[in-house]
Amino acid sequence: MIATPLQAPDRLSPTFAALADPTRRAILARLSAGERSVTELAEPFEMSLPAVSKHLKVLERAGLIARGRDAQWRPCRLTGGPLKDVADWVEGYRRFWAESFDRLDDYLREMQKQTKKVRKKEKTNGRQQSGN
Amino acid sequence: MIATPLQAPDRLSPTFAALADPTRRAILARLSAGERSVTELAEPFEMSLPAVSKHLKVLERAGLIARGRDAQWRPCRLTGGPLKDVADWVEGYRRFWAESFDRLDDYLREMQKQTKKVRKKEKTNGRQQSGN
Repeated sequence: MIATPLQAPDRLSPTFAALADPTRRAILARLSAGERSVTELAEPFEMSLPAVSKHLKVLERAGLIARGRDAQWRPCRLTGGPLKDVADWVEGYRRFWAESFDRLDDYLREMQKQTKKVRKKEKTNGRQQSGN
Repeated sequence: MIATPLQAPDRLSPTFAALADPTRRAILARLSAGERSVTELAEPFEMSLPAVSKHLKVLERAGLIARGRDAQWRPCRLTGGPLKDVADWVEGYRRFWAESFDRLDDYLREMQKQTKKVRKKEKTNGRQQSGN
């Protein structure tokens, strides 16, 4: 069954779009340590406050952060809901990377077997040569 | 520690950008059942082949799908690597949604306690009133 687009309110698309930027992901990483003001968030990025505010608006619209009500400070904090949606979505594909690693594992095991065979052959040949 | 943008090759951003579209996620859902040709993929979407091809190119650039070498058919298949990166990234934030649910749980438990208290009080009051 395929969910055809625009059937239900699509909350995943704005979440993924918000996460598709390294600065926004770095902002989330900073917020994972606790609430921060916009000024505090702007600090490590050598970025203007308006530029950071723009990123925060994208994160806020996706529900990834919430802002405090204090008009002076309005601290930002991370909200987990949309990240849970991402985790649930990606979980449905787990077998694809698990399978890939299984296949790599099979390949490495096969390689090991071949190497052992070659070594054994070399050893036998060596003994035969020294016997000659 | 915050990874500043553009420090390392950023593979997550194109992955998240590719996933920020419901049609592309639906294509991945279809491919999770097995290889499909572009024509087969286009079928359920009432979409032109060029439109589907455009989506496939975005998915392919992000490494989310691979195309077969057969020039005639070039079947698409899902590749798990970038999805594992997404799962690993989001895993780092698990405590945020686990915590949210813990907090909701605490809140509901507190509500329940309050409701019980109110009911007990009502019962006692009722008894006192019927006693009068």
